[in-house]
Amino acid sequence: MVTASAPGKVILFGEHAVVYGEPAIAAAINRRIYVSVEKRSDDEISVTSGHALKGGYPYVTAAVELTFEFLGRCCGLDVKVDSEFPPASGLGSSAAVSVATILATASLLGGDVGKKDLARLGHQVERRVQGAASITDSSVTTFGGVLFIKPGLEVVERIDSESLPLVVGYTGVGGSTKEQVEKVRVLRESYPDVVGPIIHTIGRLTLTAKKVLQEGGEIGGLMNINHGLLESLGVGTDLLSKYVYAARDAGAAGAKITGAGGGGCMVAYAPGRQDEVARALSDAGGLAMKVSVEGQGVRVERK
Amino acid sequence: MVTASAPGKVILFGEHAVVYGEPAIAAAINRRIYVSVEKRSDDEISVTSGHALKGGYPYVTAAVELTFEFLGRCCGLDVKVDSEFPPASGLGSSAAVSVATILATASLLGGDVGKKDLARLGHQVERRVQGAASITDSSVTTFGGVLFIKPGLEVVERIDSESLPLVVGYTGVGGSTKEQVEKVRVLRESYPDVVGPIIHTIGRLTLTAKKVLQEGGEIGGLMNINHGLLESLGVGTDLLSKYVYAARDAGAAGAKITGAGGGGCMVAYAPGRQDEVARALSDAGGLAMKVSVEGQGVRVERK
Repeated sequence: MVTASAPGKVILFGEHAVVYGEPAIAAAINRRIYVSVEKRSDDEISVTSGHALKGGYPYVTAAVELTFEFLGRCCGLDVKVDSEFPPASGLGSSAAVSVATILATASLLGGDVGKKDLARLGHQVERRVQGAASITDSSVTTFGGVLFIKPGLEVVERIDSESLPLVVGYTGVGGSTKEQVEKVRVLRESYPDVVGPIIHTIGRLTLTAKKVLQEGGEIGGLMNINHGLLESLGVGTDLLSKYVYAARDAGAAGAKITGAGGGGCMVAYAPGRQDEVARALSDAGGLAMKVSVEGQGVRVERK
Repeated sequence: MVTASAPGKVILFGEHAVVYGEPAIAAAINRRIYVSVEKRSDDEISVTSGHALKGGYPYVTAAVELTFEFLGRCCGLDVKVDSEFPPASGLGSSAAVSVATILATASLLGGDVGKKDLARLGHQVERRVQGAASITDSSVTTFGGVLFIKPGLEVVERIDSESLPLVVGYTGVGGSTKEQVEKVRVLRESYPDVVGPIIHTIGRLTLTAKKVLQEGGEIGGLMNINHGLLESLGVGTDLLSKYVYAARDAGAAGAKITGAGGGGCMVAYAPGRQDEVARALSDAGGLAMKVSVEGQGVRVERK
């Protein structure tokens, strides 16, 4: 049996704008998904999960198949999935489970797959299942750390940043990324002269944030601005807004929607106030998770 | 005795950006302030108010003095002020009470002051009391209707628009315009590359809204975008956000902060849903006012 794990992620800056070629900054978080694979005597692929992995099985089976294709080898497998964070919450469970499955399967079969290939294959799995996907999630879960992603050029750059004390607030409502992306597309078509500049401004904001992160500066203010710009794109909800203000009132330096919006999660940057912010988010009815940046991407845990 | 009245206003588009030379669109609303003036035997100016006119007296006395200067005449006055909307709520009570006082006083003294002079004098009163003021409020309360204001050129243009069924939600918290304007100034200085484009985008949005209004189109979507951009400037509050989402959930086509933010009011555009939206805002704890555009600016009521 081989167990591999890969971290979840939060997008710190640039979600939605990244769809239109603007850069984004994402961070792996210290909550992981664990995938264990074991050979079976027959040639079935059986997937079980301790956690309710809503919509996760297609990623697992697609990841197994793609790994078989890549290595030119195959076998029957029992796959077991466990997660330290809720699936379909915008924290990158699809990419994490895909990449962890690929590494576990390849490792079991004695194949050697480098990180670049893991990220590429993980992205392919997401594309196969969803039809379209950004390289953000698969890159972050593969490499870990804080990454600057420039989609047009397929550039991924690691940002050496101070430790970031974050608190994630989950609304318990699964936001559909596809729906929210479509919503922004329609808005952009309706008001090109307004929404175009907003998307471009998010890109500028992300570039500013990169510089601030590299200089060890304070990103809270920029997160707050980014939140408003996401609201202007129509991906906010009353609940997300409630949590964002609750976090700020509890002393977070910044708070914003993270990911596609329309539900899902928000993230707060809360140096010295993680406990207070987590409590405020719980009091507001959210699932609060204190997290920090995870330097390690996908890895083999046990072999 | 002479009674004059002048309407309150809501800003539909462009608040805060107007401070940086971008255009704004404001509408007079069918809630008025009434100012009655009567000669006294002595030369005192005595002001009373049925409504608690927080901070309103300086505007009344400055307006009386300026009218005396303008006409080269003076006398003792009893001034009585009544209002159909809460003062210091961002609905333009200062400008309305100033302009109504000027017209009532001038009319009592037999002076003839044209609308342009009324607007100009009203603006002067606001500048005298506050130190600085935009021409928006004094223009709207003087002329009534929906006005397009280009501050750099001191251009005021009337927009012929369909009737706009609006609902105003007052938080009960008086937002300080001065404080909020200062907050945006500091944010703009901290992040010029980001906040500059946001302010410019609000200007573009206002131009788009002008066209839509002139064509009798639907302004709700643009109001929602404008709301997010105001959030990004940091002038939102949890309460304003709560009301905005409550209004949208109750069927408003659009909802946004109106005025300086940090408290004060939000406004919803709610064709066919004014009652539902007003109820939702009340349920959320706000003071809800169903209003429509008031075509008539300052006028003499009784002489």
